[in-house]
Amino acid sequence: MAQKPSIPKGTRDFSPEEVSKRNYIINILRHNFELFGFQPIETPSFENSNTLMGKYGEEGDRLIFKILNSGDYLSKASEANLSFKDSNALTSEISEKALRYDLTVPFARYVVQHQNEIDFPFKRYQIQPVWRADRPQKGRFREFFQCDADAVGSDSLLQEVTFIQLYDAVFGDLGLEGVTVKMNNRKILSGLAETIGEADKLIDFTVALDKLDKIGEEGVIKEMLEKGISQTAIERVKPIFRVHGNFADKLILLKALLADSVIGKKGIEELEYINTKIEALGLSTISLDLDVTLARGLNYYTGAIFEVAAPKIVAMGSIGGGGRYDDLTGIFGLKNMSGVGISFGLDRIYLVIEELDLFPAQALKGTKLLFINFGETESLYCLKAVKKLREAGITSELYPDAAKMKKQMSHADKRNIQFVVLAGAEEIEQDVYTLKNMKTGDQKRLSISELIQELN
Amino acid sequence: MAQKPSIPKGTRDFSPEEVSKRNYIINILRHNFELFGFQPIETPSFENSNTLMGKYGEEGDRLIFKILNSGDYLSKASEANLSFKDSNALTSEISEKALRYDLTVPFARYVVQHQNEIDFPFKRYQIQPVWRADRPQKGRFREFFQCDADAVGSDSLLQEVTFIQLYDAVFGDLGLEGVTVKMNNRKILSGLAETIGEADKLIDFTVALDKLDKIGEEGVIKEMLEKGISQTAIERVKPIFRVHGNFADKLILLKALLADSVIGKKGIEELEYINTKIEALGLSTISLDLDVTLARGLNYYTGAIFEVAAPKIVAMGSIGGGGRYDDLTGIFGLKNMSGVGISFGLDRIYLVIEELDLFPAQALKGTKLLFINFGETESLYCLKAVKKLREAGITSELYPDAAKMKKQMSHADKRNIQFVVLAGAEEIEQDVYTLKNMKTGDQKRLSISELIQELN
Repeated sequence: MAQKPSIPKGTRDFSPEEVSKRNYIINILRHNFELFGFQPIETPSFENSNTLMGKYGEEGDRLIFKILNSGDYLSKASEANLSFKDSNALTSEISEKALRYDLTVPFARYVVQHQNEIDFPFKRYQIQPVWRADRPQKGRFREFFQCDADAVGSDSLLQEVTFIQLYDAVFGDLGLEGVTVKMNNRKILSGLAETIGEADKLIDFTVALDKLDKIGEEGVIKEMLEKGISQTAIERVKPIFRVHGNFADKLILLKALLADSVIGKKGIEELEYINTKIEALGLSTISLDLDVTLARGLNYYTGAIFEVAAPKIVAMGSIGGGGRYDDLTGIFGLKNMSGVGISFGLDRIYLVIEELDLFPAQALKGTKLLFINFGETESLYCLKAVKKLREAGITSELYPDAAKMKKQMSHADKRNIQFVVLAGAEEIEQDVYTLKNMKTGDQKRLSISELIQELN
Repeated sequence: MAQKPSIPKGTRDFSPEEVSKRNYIINILRHNFELFGFQPIETPSFENSNTLMGKYGEEGDRLIFKILNSGDYLSKASEANLSFKDSNALTSEISEKALRYDLTVPFARYVVQHQNEIDFPFKRYQIQPVWRADRPQKGRFREFFQCDADAVGSDSLLQEVTFIQLYDAVFGDLGLEGVTVKMNNRKILSGLAETIGEADKLIDFTVALDKLDKIGEEGVIKEMLEKGISQTAIERVKPIFRVHGNFADKLILLKALLADSVIGKKGIEELEYINTKIEALGLSTISLDLDVTLARGLNYYTGAIFEVAAPKIVAMGSIGGGGRYDDLTGIFGLKNMSGVGISFGLDRIYLVIEELDLFPAQALKGTKLLFINFGETESLYCLKAVKKLREAGITSELYPDAAKMKKQMSHADKRNIQFVVLAGAEEIEQDVYTLKNMKTGDQKRLSISELIQELN
């Protein structure tokens, strides 16, 4: 019996319409990445397991898809692991490769492996799928695309300025108003923890703080107390729960709060530098905000932290993010290579653009006209026109069979083809083509050159 | 100690130059696919194992990369398979998913799964990587891209005509002269085997015949004799070893040879129909040839067989191929769905274009100008220009650090950046920018609008 076809959970087929819309976004990303001097690279879908394992924490290791070795893979497996059914221990004996989990670790590996071919600073972009064995849920997939731009080999804060401009350019080209790039700095978070005397509880402190918009001030305080952060410390930090105003206003409050913290002041200085430059250069579409509660990716970011919030009218949350990591390539033996990077969440941006109905008609450009097939002689007559139209860059097709007229018209209709051409004995006689507009029903007889002119 | 980074054998990193050149080819493919009315789809990188297994023969099954189940995958494994270390039997117990091996089976699965959304005939193209656990060797990789266009749901021979035109359009746009599309028809091969009384040895017969250009007439005869094809039969088939002339000439010979074979005559009729149409429509770049020895993919092609030969001046062999299969989707329960498709060999086309030095300079367009960084004030002055240049669509960058002049110039040089801008106190004073052509050494002072005009 034939199998009922299906695909693995958490993966997707993309229809022609979906691919066209995705490519519309990807083309805008690619165009802007290149306009800003980022160069494209691509890395293999799978890496040696030891390149990936241990880079994303225990949870990450678990979510990495492992590839079974080829051939008689059990021949080298230890008897003990087999008889104790020790999946964990067996994995490294029967699997040497794994699907990439993100684009950052492969990029770090690339930089180290190719360091002698690269002239630093190196700015690359990469648009490729990644895979995670996560529980599939709404908007979360096991195969999804990451769109990353990173710059390594310079600790200039002008890189951060450039990335904010890049966000502005991309969302401008997408026609997406109301996007906010929220910024913070790891050094501010360290300074806050330090200044309240809880430097050793930095992670607990920031994890709780990060939840402010979800669980509110009381919830955050409750969590901090549970984690052993003292009431006195919490009192000292309370002002930041209610920080408001623009970027510069918030900096004033932070300056007062962090006056005694060397690292905190460094963080303020960095944010102020970036904000001053952005103010001098101006933004067209996005706005920049300082969000002291932002702690995204705290375990690797060392300076700037970015998170991109979708327009408030759609309930989507983050559609991008990034930050600076001072030692991207150290894990692979290349020290002191500061990097900063951002990513765009393709799937979520797609959903936002769809919800706000911002995909332009040209993103869906398909076949412009279909020639109706009336039989042998007529089809050859039509194919000659089709050839000339294509040479003029106009997408056109002949229906391949001399099927019933109704069937062919319905095909044009279902595929949203705007025009059909009808050419029978009379048209051939006069060397013309009857062009019918499927929307208006208008018909006119045109010579081949008039036809090209009409549709160009 | 840090790991020395590497990638799995048979996989590749692509540098910025390589990605740009690959995208140049892919963009030409994509453009022509769409011009011809093919619609893009994408399918997941991995499929359920039962979708793939058993579709490519025993050898194929072995070469499919299997993905280990997540979590405690051994808990469901049978004790017997573990204790006997039976890799083969264990695989289906610990792996439910596998990386796709080609794009044809996933396409067939897609058509059946989405049959109610599709209005047939359905013409799709797909450009995605596939994976095979093959022994890596020169020009053969474990991860490589396939670029396929297929049309299903019509047995009109005009589809074959269209595919030949598509090859012509693509190789024309690539500027690649001297490509030959070789054609044959499965029915011709069946007719030949039938007419010499060896219909039951069709496979042995065609496999031997296919080797004519490698092992010569004597070699082919020797192999046929070894496979039990009679001397009498071989005598009857000898004329095809020496067939020559153009497409029409060869058809004349075949007509004489296959006069008594119903299926053979049907094959001739099909080839003649296609050739007549192509002659009436004309080809611009490629030439079409009839090659009776062509047996590529005999196990699934039922009508036309295509193979694309690279220009003779490069020793590359096949750079594409395809054919018609009358029952593409039957394996998934959708009967009577005739399909015809072709593929382009991206990696080999790349090598040919490279060898013949046909990549245009625009395929490598990188950053056009680099602004030299002289410090705080100067860099902000430059960033204002960079912003305006980018808005005008001109790729430009500011070097992020106020590094030594020599280092910055050398960076421009190594990245093949054509222009640098030098702007110090004097330029700021006069509101101009000094543009230096890196190749000629020419320098001139320009206002921002002159700069944009100069570089547009």
